[in-house]
Amino acid sequence: MTKEPIFDVAQIAHVEIFTPKPDETLWFFKELLGMEETTREGQSVYLRAYEDFYHHTLKVTEAKEPGIGHVAWRTSSKPALERRVQALESSGYGKKWIDGDLGHGPAFQFETPDGHKMELLWDVEYYKAPEHKWTKLLSRPQKRPLRGVPVRRLDHVNLLASDVTTNKNFLMNQLGFRLREHIVMNDGSEAGAWMSVSPLVHELAFMSDSLGGRGRLHHVCFWYGYPQHLSDISDIFTENEIEIEAGPGKHGVSQANFLYVLEPGGNRIELFGDAGYLIFDPEWKPITWKEDELDKGIIWYGSPLPAEFFMYGTPIIEPAKV
Amino acid sequence: MTKEPIFDVAQIAHVEIFTPKPDETLWFFKELLGMEETTREGQSVYLRAYEDFYHHTLKVTEAKEPGIGHVAWRTSSKPALERRVQALESSGYGKKWIDGDLGHGPAFQFETPDGHKMELLWDVEYYKAPEHKWTKLLSRPQKRPLRGVPVRRLDHVNLLASDVTTNKNFLMNQLGFRLREHIVMNDGSEAGAWMSVSPLVHELAFMSDSLGGRGRLHHVCFWYGYPQHLSDISDIFTENEIEIEAGPGKHGVSQANFLYVLEPGGNRIELFGDAGYLIFDPEWKPITWKEDELDKGIIWYGSPLPAEFFMYGTPIIEPAKV
Amino acid sequence: MTKEPIFDVAQIAHVEIFTPKPDETLWFFKELLGMEETTREGQSVYLRAYEDFYHHTLKVTEAKEPGIGHVAWRTSSKPALERRVQALESSGYGKKWIDGDLGHGPAFQFETPDGHKMELLWDVEYYKAPEHKWTKLLSRPQKRPLRGVPVRRLDHVNLLASDVTTNKNFLMNQLGFRLREHIVMNDGSEAGAWMSVSPLVHELAFMSDSLGGRGRLHHVCFWYGYPQHLSDISDIFTENEIEIEAGPGKHGVSQANFLYVLEPGGNRIELFGDAGYLIFDPEWKPITWKEDELDKGIIWYGSPLPAEFFMYGTPIIEPAKV
Amino acid sequence: MTKEPIFDVAQIAHVEIFTPKPDETLWFFKELLGMEETTREGQSVYLRAYEDFYHHTLKVTEAKEPGIGHVAWRTSSKPALERRVQALESSGYGKKWIDGDLGHGPAFQFETPDGHKMELLWDVEYYKAPEHKWTKLLSRPQKRPLRGVPVRRLDHVNLLASDVTTNKNFLMNQLGFRLREHIVMNDGSEAGAWMSVSPLVHELAFMSDSLGGRGRLHHVCFWYGYPQHLSDISDIFTENEIEIEAGPGKHGVSQANFLYVLEPGGNRIELFGDAGYLIFDPEWKPITWKEDELDKGIIWYGSPLPAEFFMYGTPIIEPAKV
Repeated sequence: MTKEPIFDVAQIAHVEIFTPKPDETLWFFKELLGMEETTREGQSVYLRAYEDFYHHTLKVTEAKEPGIGHVAWRTSSKPALERRVQALESSGYGKKWIDGDLGHGPAFQFETPDGHKMELLWDVEYYKAPEHKWTKLLSRPQKRPLRGVPVRRLDHVNLLASDVTTNKNFLMNQLGFRLREHIVMNDGSEAGAWMSVSPLVHELAFMSDSLGGRGRLHHVCFWYGYPQHLSDISDIFTENEIEIEAGPGKHGVSQANFLYVLEPGGNRIELFGDAGYLIFDPEWKPITWKEDELDKGIIWYGSPLPAEFFMYGTPIIEPAKV
Repeated sequence: MTKEPIFDVAQIAHVEIFTPKPDETLWFFKELLGMEETTREGQSVYLRAYEDFYHHTLKVTEAKEPGIGHVAWRTSSKPALERRVQALESSGYGKKWIDGDLGHGPAFQFETPDGHKMELLWDVEYYKAPEHKWTKLLSRPQKRPLRGVPVRRLDHVNLLASDVTTNKNFLMNQLGFRLREHIVMNDGSEAGAWMSVSPLVHELAFMSDSLGGRGRLHHVCFWYGYPQHLSDISDIFTENEIEIEAGPGKHGVSQANFLYVLEPGGNRIELFGDAGYLIFDPEWKPITWKEDELDKGIIWYGSPLPAEFFMYGTPIIEPAKV
Repeated sequence: MTKEPIFDVAQIAHVEIFTPKPDETLWFFKELLGMEETTREGQSVYLRAYEDFYHHTLKVTEAKEPGIGHVAWRTSSKPALERRVQALESSGYGKKWIDGDLGHGPAFQFETPDGHKMELLWDVEYYKAPEHKWTKLLSRPQKRPLRGVPVRRLDHVNLLASDVTTNKNFLMNQLGFRLREHIVMNDGSEAGAWMSVSPLVHELAFMSDSLGGRGRLHHVCFWYGYPQHLSDISDIFTENEIEIEAGPGKHGVSQANFLYVLEPGGNRIELFGDAGYLIFDPEWKPITWKEDELDKGIIWYGSPLPAEFFMYGTPIIEPAKV
Repeated sequence: MTKEPIFDVAQIAHVEIFTPKPDETLWFFKELLGMEETTREGQSVYLRAYEDFYHHTLKVTEAKEPGIGHVAWRTSSKPALERRVQALESSGYGKKWIDGDLGHGPAFQFETPDGHKMELLWDVEYYKAPEHKWTKLLSRPQKRPLRGVPVRRLDHVNLLASDVTTNKNFLMNQLGFRLREHIVMNDGSEAGAWMSVSPLVHELAFMSDSLGGRGRLHHVCFWYGYPQHLSDISDIFTENEIEIEAGPGKHGVSQANFLYVLEPGGNRIELFGDAGYLIFDPEWKPITWKEDELDKGIIWYGSPLPAEFFMYGTPIIEPAKV
């Protein structure tokens, strides 16, 4: 209670996803969501939204199955990185330092208790636009693309976990994430937890993997800032045979205006028309949604979620096989 | 460079404004902007937007002239408050502790170099809705009002200063504000500075007081989150003889979707259709708008600002008298 | 083919609905949808949206059961009225002239083959705002109300019919309605028909009454013009225990942005965020949605329709009793 | 008064504009406004918006100076065409029949008293999308383009005239246009007139040519239907050095949400976020804006119009030369 908050993790830096259909996945992100390709290397393509400042925020890597490669977090400073690495190492979940990747310097690898691969880093490379993409809007690293309905920045990642509470506690204790909202079932178990290191309601959520998987991805989310863009992209998805799973609608949790879609490689992508409310209160008491008031928490209004929303993740597990 | 950031100030807590026409000012905030009255005492009425969590975010106090009473900031913790009070005291701008006010506990009073009254506090009282205002949207402290086009939360304050740089440095050094964007004139002087303690581009801005005043208010801003609401409230302002000074339009600085209006007491109020971009980069290099690229910085598109925008503040100074 | 179109009917003039809960129904229309009461007489209250020009567009009459009282159409001229009365009389569906009602002069009563009561009229009384509601927006008959999320005008009516084709033909042949879109099932029967006398896709639709009822109401629709208002009113409906049946979403038929809700008296009300596309082509070939492409026709994207959407109408018929 | 309305003209069919910079003009319409090229012939390129049903709605023809080529109107039927040709011939403003052009059959040419070239026609060719552009949204002739912020349909044309009243009367008397709104100066002269053959407030407006020109174009307007798209395209215009003349904002006249921009060839283009209100009243009394209430008529709220708005037209006349 008298403990002061940890401010060592600053933001989600990038996410790597796997896809068995790299061409189609890239078409989806580049032509429909207007994302920009920074570079390619090996089986990976590095992308960013047009208001993302760093080298990339999405790394798309060819693989046999869809799923999450890793999630990278940037710390608040270099000493903050050192403090968090120390904490991770003593937690037993730390793994090792790597030299870096395209777009960033040394990174410390670790895993969540559920086995999701993550990295912590400080040194990043900024995107530098070629001259024909320069804009007079100085807070925008490049011109708005003329393709599709372009997303503006990476927003958050939602991971399935075999045990929400354990994974939540790990991130709160070792990295300083704050719990913002969670779902508590009648038996006392947590079915979902939304956590952040900033005033956003979440940069990271864990939801219970009802198929008993470990280390799976539920979705990655990009942000528009304007609800109309969810209608625009829905029009385009529907005409281009991209399956909209749910939305547009408004979540109770986070109050965000959402849309869920499956990219051609099979990963679920969320788009935010707006990110909902922001939390500035330093003493925030987590919102608890009980099992019997869950309906409004999940969908405040608009399109309901299909049953598969609570089971489908990547890599895919067939419900029958469980 | 190796110094770690200060995270001791968490948010803007409330603002007090003066009005010579309290009834009309309250009609404006309550009937048009849908704000809620918490209580009254003496010559003051305490208001909040329906998604503000504390007792109040706007204190309206009757006075001979419009202007700013004080701005209150909440710290990140109790020890953080103590650290900042110490810093303020050694800066020479600290004043004294007060026991508190309706809605909060002990507060430390200080002044900016320009003379704007401010407070730093930790203990706050949360708003508790009566039963008929309870909502199932658990992150909302009460139902959305059915009056006017209701604003959702206090966003920021913009102050006129005789010397932008001095005041900016004071807040950066003593309270840990980060500079996000600023305007630098050809002679090297700063004409405006936008600062924040959160990913918002600003909770506080200083703009140069071209009439040579000290301690004046430029505007207080409330947030909608949806651009359509600026159109809706513009409709209502126009029909109800409330003077729209500028907007709707989009600022280059902050990328926010804005509207400026004069409340009946004479204070300028800004409304944000959306707050623009968020800054998560812990190494953010401030955006510098030079004098000759200033146009796009002030208005990216939409309604231009009239000349009086750069002179009018409260209390009012007649340009002729300068 | 060489026949020229009939332009004798100009618009939907007003709709009368029945409610067993007049107080709650009026609260819904006045406090949530911001409608204005013109006057009351007997068991009826006369309402209009703030951009409706006539005395009223909605007459709410107390009755034992919810349902439709009548639908009134205004002709293009007085001679046009005479021509259509003649046509109705020779069709066998004409009934009789009445002297009028509050807000309009003589009206000719008739029934659709399914038994929906309708009127045709020419003389109307215009709404005259009291001085405090005058607005400088000269095309608006009064100021925008400050209550709820105010609707702007009556848009259309949707009626359940035991036989869509017969009723459709009646209105096309006798009154000059043009068929804009329709649903044709695999057995060749029409399951729905959208018709208009203007560039709107419909002022009137018939849908097949799957419970075998006659003369029932499916819904009455009011228009906003801006999609955001469907989100705003959804927020308010959800917080005030008003049941949203479906939406917001976008129909394939008409391309309109819709929301369906049950008013407290039991009648289904639709709200249009926007009315979709307009038809100016004088040779318009009706759009035919076949049974197997129906899904996209009903919901282009967004919230799906529940099964009850295709059965529930007023007066209510219990599915079990059929 | 007992005269029945004329319903012989159904819609604006297409507009031809001249440009001295065809490549740049086409880049503007195709890459920024997402318009589709149907075909080219000689010095002309034929374009349409993606929800326009006919072969083309915009013909862009290379010429030394920008300006209007002609405006084509489609009648309600073939007999209606014959009736209107007869009226035009007896008016003295009829010219001659031509065999047609790409996309339509025989057309009757005429001129307004001010000298604007116009055509009246019945036979049109419908656009047929190639298979990869087919959409399941059956009321849409092709998929929504993935380029720029695509406009949906041609809305209206606004012409400068040396004498508004004469030109207005000509179109009302010969073609059956209805006057919807107009501006009347203190000296009794009409400074502007908005007219339509449909519930739209206008398909055609005349504004007084303050530079004394004849037969000039003020602007051509395309329609989005959603206000957000004006913000989106403003972003793109600003970044791509396209001059926004005014907007986004809301007109008092028509209540439309507008944006004015100069295409690279020099013609003013208007974009409608929404078209405002619709007029269904068959006895509509034209709205009269007097000189002293004109401000609100022109700009209800938002970006004011610069002085050049009332002088600039194409072909360009230099104010100094007058």
